Amino acid sequence: MRLRNKPWAKDFMAQHPDVLILDEERPKVDWQQEFGNEHPIHIEVGTGKGQFIIGMALANPEINYIGIELFDNVIVSALEKVIEMDKPKNLRLLRANGANLTELFQEGQVDRVYLNFSDPWPKTRHAKRRLTHESFLQRYETVLRKNGEIHFKTDNRKLFEYSLTSMSAYKMKLQFVSLDLHADMPEDNIMTEYEEKFSAKGMPIYRLEAQFCE
Amino acid sequence: MRLRNKPWAKDFMAQHPDVLILDEERPKVDWQQEFGNEHPIHIEVGTGKGQFIIGMALANPEINYIGIELFDNVIVSALEKVIEMDKPKNLRLLRANGANLTELFQEGQVDRVYLNFSDPWPKTRHAKRRLTHESFLQRYETVLRKNGEIHFKTDNRKLFEYSLTSMSAYKMKLQFVSLDLHADMPEDNIMTEYEEKFSAKGMPIYRLEAQFCE
Repeated sequence: MRLRNKPWAKDFMAQHPDVLILDEERPKVDWQQEFGNEHPIHIEVGTGKGQFIIGMALANPEINYIGIELFDNVIVSALEKVIEMDKPKNLRLLRANGANLTELFQEGQVDRVYLNFSDPWPKTRHAKRRLTHESFLQRYETVLRKNGEIHFKTDNRKLFEYSLTSMSAYKMKLQFVSLDLHADMPEDNIMTEYEEKFSAKGMPIYRLEAQFCE
Repeated sequence: MRLRNKPWAKDFMAQHPDVLILDEERPKVDWQQEFGNEHPIHIEVGTGKGQFIIGMALANPEINYIGIELFDNVIVSALEKVIEMDKPKNLRLLRANGANLTELFQEGQVDRVYLNFSDPWPKTRHAKRRLTHESFLQRYETVLRKNGEIHFKTDNRKLFEYSLTSMSAYKMKLQFVSLDLHADMPEDNIMTEYEEKFSAKGMPIYRLEAQFCE
């Protein structure tokens, strides 16, 4: 992700507290109160410019979506799109670090975790930063309901291979695997910005669904 | 696998009982006696024309290899190669049906199972015939030692995807996954006939190692 400095980001973000939540200002959000209903909560960790989570929110009004992104200069692009789409009621952006997930959600509060085109952190010494490292799987398991699921897609082969073995070592159950998502052409696939770019080049997109087991 | 009829196959096979064992003639082989030692036993189910198992036997003289193949017209090609290589002492061919594995080996007798470019049986109604179907995993688990491993490679994406979810559902642990084996260039990779053909076309070869857990 190219991080262009955007000096206007902070002001712009502060103007839309109804859709963008800053973790340091509201460290403990009551998500049911926030959405005004008890619909299932699906979160995306590393939501980037927001195309996926916005598409999902528009396609599935009975599910509440939260797109979590650490970088101001990135999340403002998502915010711009959310405003363009008239701020869907079932969508919030959360400017926060995914490493703090267990402080942002109650145990078992989340129904599904999406990871899309996460940073591959290719160097072995950075493996702990990968969003499918054991330490992150622990966090997801804590905030997810029993038998909750992770849905993960990426164009990065090495990250996908790593994730398969990492999830297997964590005793998660692989429920679905595609090693060429676009060859399988699922009708309900909502593409991220990265996905459009890489699949247009003919590169395979990898996708899995994995479930935490008791 | 193209099955050309070879009327000479039966006679040729009968002439080499020292390396080729016919299951109906010797239903209960004492493998330690057969090899004359207690070295680990690695088997390949569906050994085809034998290039892989012969290469492995030559590379690893301290391991005993058994290549299992059902079809006479195929296993004779492996037999020809074994004869060319002066019949390595640590290698046997076994003309048998992989479905009868538990009758061919004692419980826990096998140290590793290789599956290479197995028939993908693409139709859902034939899923039970795939060599990574639950019913085959059960057979492997029975004949393998505790924490025994399956090493599997294929060019068939759908079979590999199926195998990942099938092994995960069986609670096997994925220890290694490559989604482009030849891009990773492992030095000790011994290629099968299929592998040479498909990788030469630039198609990815998928490979995994999975362990049965207690």
